[in-house]
Amino acid sequence: MLASELRVRGFEVLTTMEPGGTPLGRRLRAAFLETEENVAPLAELLLFAADRAQHVNFLIKPALAEGKIVISDRYADATFAYQGAGRGFSEETVNAVIKLATDGLKPDLTLFFDVPVEKAIMRTNARTDEETQKNRMDSETIEFYERVRTAYLGIAEREPERFIVIDGDASVGEIKAKILPIISDFLESGNN
Amino acid sequence: MLASELRVRGFEVLTTMEPGGTPLGRRLRAAFLETEENVAPLAELLLFAADRAQHVNFLIKPALAEGKIVISDRYADATFAYQGAGRGFSEETVNAVIKLATDGLKPDLTLFFDVPVEKAIMRTNARTDEETQKNRMDSETIEFYERVRTAYLGIAEREPERFIVIDGDASVGEIKAKILPIISDFLESGNN
Repeated sequence: MLASELRVRGFEVLTTMEPGGTPLGRRLRAAFLETEENVAPLAELLLFAADRAQHVNFLIKPALAEGKIVISDRYADATFAYQGAGRGFSEETVNAVIKLATDGLKPDLTLFFDVPVEKAIMRTNARTDEETQKNRMDSETIEFYERVRTAYLGIAEREPERFIVIDGDASVGEIKAKILPIISDFLESGNN
Repeated sequence: MLASELRVRGFEVLTTMEPGGTPLGRRLRAAFLETEENVAPLAELLLFAADRAQHVNFLIKPALAEGKIVISDRYADATFAYQGAGRGFSEETVNAVIKLATDGLKPDLTLFFDVPVEKAIMRTNARTDEETQKNRMDSETIEFYERVRTAYLGIAEREPERFIVIDGDASVGEIKAKILPIISDFLESGNN
């Protein structure tokens, strides 16, 4: 909906995702989700970093160079939250891997859709579409997701200008009504 | 042949490889070789690091803990040579990624089978078996492989005790005759 709204306003928009934004990334994501063995936390960290490096290099940077707005479903903050707070890697290690994989490229604006962990788990369990149904990353403990959520909310505290928390428990219409003025303000501020 | 010889002498031996020593690693290797797009050098570096982290964590370390001898076809030196000297990443970057992926685990002994680049390319081109036939890593320029070879030979100069250069242009029998005393000396020296 955000991309459509931006296109109506005359912007060129690329919508993409991590992991799996590129052909290589989709193969890496499938390897991660489908492998018959456990995945070592360090392998997970480096695998998502490989996906991100390919994504930044072949999709995000070229789109930005063409003047497009890039909307990515997840980016480096997800590694900070999931592999850092979730898996327990130090901020130093996680930040070094993120810096390497992104070549220092940071988002101008991040929207975080915040939902209480129990509710998020209920939503995930209710998914039936094959593409989005419960997978390896959706099978952790409540404590894991609490650590992930706390890490995300910590980013919001440290970088309130860049990282906006949206109540993900509201209706789609309410969320849209909340986001559009934020985006308008951002675009008009010339931060982009 | 080395593994058989060691088993005859009463050692338990694990033979393995990088990339692709684990189920996840085989999927990552296939993703790398089969993807329909180019692979960014940074994605390649991180992808092989993910493969190595899984390999060290689930195969090499447990085997060593059980007292086995681990023989791996390639390990971290390959990243130093291919992604470092070959792709041009700095030693600092490559060594940081290697240290992270291996958790600092180094081989006790490395055998490098040295063949002039032109001859190695002829051998690769002559392969017909699907598993070993020419792939993405075998399609670089002669200059690329010269840099890789020079990097390997540089390790031999810096770490002559650990890294042994074997003339890979000799016959299988000659190579075996050369290797066995090296292995015997190593095992008797108590370095292991």
